[in-house]
Amino acid sequence: MNLYDPKRIPRSIIPENQEFPMLSLSSWVTPENKYYIRNHFPYPALPLNDWALKIEGLVQKPILLNYQALCQFPQIILPVTMECSGNKRAYFQPKARGVQWEQGAVSHALWTGVPLRTLLQVAGIMPNVREVIFEGMDTGERIDLPGTFRFARSLPVEKAMHPDTLIALCMNGKPISYKHGHPARLIVPNWYGMASVKWLYRIVATDQVFKGPFQNIDYVVYRSKKDSQRRPVTLMKVNSVISQPTDQTVLRRGKHFITGTAWSGQGSVKMVEISLDHGGTWNLVTWLDSEEKYSWRRWGWDWNVPVPGTYLIMVKATDDKGNIQPLQAEWNVMGYENNSISQIQVYIE
Amino acid sequence: MNLYDPKRIPRSIIPENQEFPMLSLSSWVTPENKYYIRNHFPYPALPLNDWALKIEGLVQKPILLNYQALCQFPQIILPVTMECSGNKRAYFQPKARGVQWEQGAVSHALWTGVPLRTLLQVAGIMPNVREVIFEGMDTGERIDLPGTFRFARSLPVEKAMHPDTLIALCMNGKPISYKHGHPARLIVPNWYGMASVKWLYRIVATDQVFKGPFQNIDYVVYRSKKDSQRRPVTLMKVNSVISQPTDQTVLRRGKHFITGTAWSGQGSVKMVEISLDHGGTWNLVTWLDSEEKYSWRRWGWDWNVPVPGTYLIMVKATDDKGNIQPLQAEWNVMGYENNSISQIQVYIE
Repeated sequence: MNLYDPKRIPRSIIPENQEFPMLSLSSWVTPENKYYIRNHFPYPALPLNDWALKIEGLVQKPILLNYQALCQFPQIILPVTMECSGNKRAYFQPKARGVQWEQGAVSHALWTGVPLRTLLQVAGIMPNVREVIFEGMDTGERIDLPGTFRFARSLPVEKAMHPDTLIALCMNGKPISYKHGHPARLIVPNWYGMASVKWLYRIVATDQVFKGPFQNIDYVVYRSKKDSQRRPVTLMKVNSVISQPTDQTVLRRGKHFITGTAWSGQGSVKMVEISLDHGGTWNLVTWLDSEEKYSWRRWGWDWNVPVPGTYLIMVKATDDKGNIQPLQAEWNVMGYENNSISQIQVYIE
Repeated sequence: MNLYDPKRIPRSIIPENQEFPMLSLSSWVTPENKYYIRNHFPYPALPLNDWALKIEGLVQKPILLNYQALCQFPQIILPVTMECSGNKRAYFQPKARGVQWEQGAVSHALWTGVPLRTLLQVAGIMPNVREVIFEGMDTGERIDLPGTFRFARSLPVEKAMHPDTLIALCMNGKPISYKHGHPARLIVPNWYGMASVKWLYRIVATDQVFKGPFQNIDYVVYRSKKDSQRRPVTLMKVNSVISQPTDQTVLRRGKHFITGTAWSGQGSVKMVEISLDHGGTWNLVTWLDSEEKYSWRRWGWDWNVPVPGTYLIMVKATDDKGNIQPLQAEWNVMGYENNSISQIQVYIE
């Protein structure tokens, strides 16, 4: 029933940044109109009829593929969980600058597309290629640098050639909508969302290390301006959220089904545990979804609570590589990769 | 342009509780589809064709008015700011239980309606009446008491007989929509929103003090369970919010127009001041709206900031009764009436 169906949660207007309303998590696949939106610039004007994707640089024969040509390559469908690396930034203490995402800068969709490697092979990618650069059609100014920029990111050639790195044309079975990157979007499974460039425009194979500002200034983890241990944001860390109940809710004594979802880009989520005693004991949740390569798994736990009081609910996920959510994620200047254990407080009357 | 128009921010699904997206404050009047929603129960089933408003109790002749009859009484239009008494609850430290409203549980609309006193006079309200009770059509269970309840509130007879207390039929020039209380809603200017009962069903004049749970348990300010100084929530305290920029935003050096709105149910907002030096000095803002009896006033301030750094922006409003927003509102168990000075942090590069 549509009466109670919540919409996305706005975080900024232009560029548009909106969260998936996690409290309404119900389906495995996020509907297109609730899928989180993270933009760096205003929406681009799309050259709808004469759009074509260029593949050039260190390739034997540069190619130009229009929409129809692209659609004729063999395509695969992949369910992929995508999380913004700034998800949960609002929970850092002290506060980290930037869009104050709570826990909904993450969604899950079915992406249909042509494996990028098919196209790179058609163009004849050269053996000395080190990185592949992806340029979107979205452009604008930055606060820290003069000039106009295009949103652009690179991938190491190994990841670009991975059979599941897609030039996606459909999302949840329909052509990708304007807001999500029409006509074509890069989909990089396991990586944080900044890698999945929208409104694709040009792909360049290079033997250099790409130094665009969305690679070299943004999406870099460092603890202070002088930190010498800078590292780029790449794979999603193991993470989980509680969708219901919400923080500070008052509940009746008795049975409650606590629900949420969990994912990892560094492995497969193997275990989600829940604690009602400040982390003293941990209980295994029930899976609501089976294990898929790149997908979140919804979980639930039957809580029977006969005694009134104030309860802290803590949830932590573990993946098959042994990664576990920390009690407190490491603070960093830009506020990326917050995968702290999820905690809420509820009151039982 | 609709492309960037944010929707309401969901806080709970059933009952539906949603905030006005304050970051998108642009018009004086809040559009109906962005006006905040605060419900205690699921939406009621409306008896659309045979609805009639009963006025009974201590009156000479109880009356039953159907929609057409009600529409034929003389009506007035009032612009009214309405704030949920739980607005800004999320900012209390320690956390207070209940819906975690940030700063958007407040809106402003034009209400068209019949002054309640006209109807009470037609019914022949008796001189010994002390309170007037208003019952909505929304019903449901409570966590703390057994049984099924109707949402109901009372007003002191003086407030009920105030010429601006309305039985409203229209909101922003159109019949009140289902979600906002169709067919008729009580509008109590200056009071927090719980007084403005939606989906009106019955009005009862009484010589008793009404003790319904939404009057006697909820909407009561107390500092601990043993606090003997309990008092009901009534008039809106002087309050203000910053709509733009948003917290933790990174901005360029130069000029920025800081905007927001301010209101008071205890007087007329006379002054809004802004501080950029942790409250050392305060600057008067520019009004974007003139003074109206029951309306918020949007304000703006030109900030010229040549020096990079981290800035705290503080805003406080003062009304003509001398009420000033406190640096920290008094914490109370239910988290009502948080009118602390608004503060955000921004970064200038």
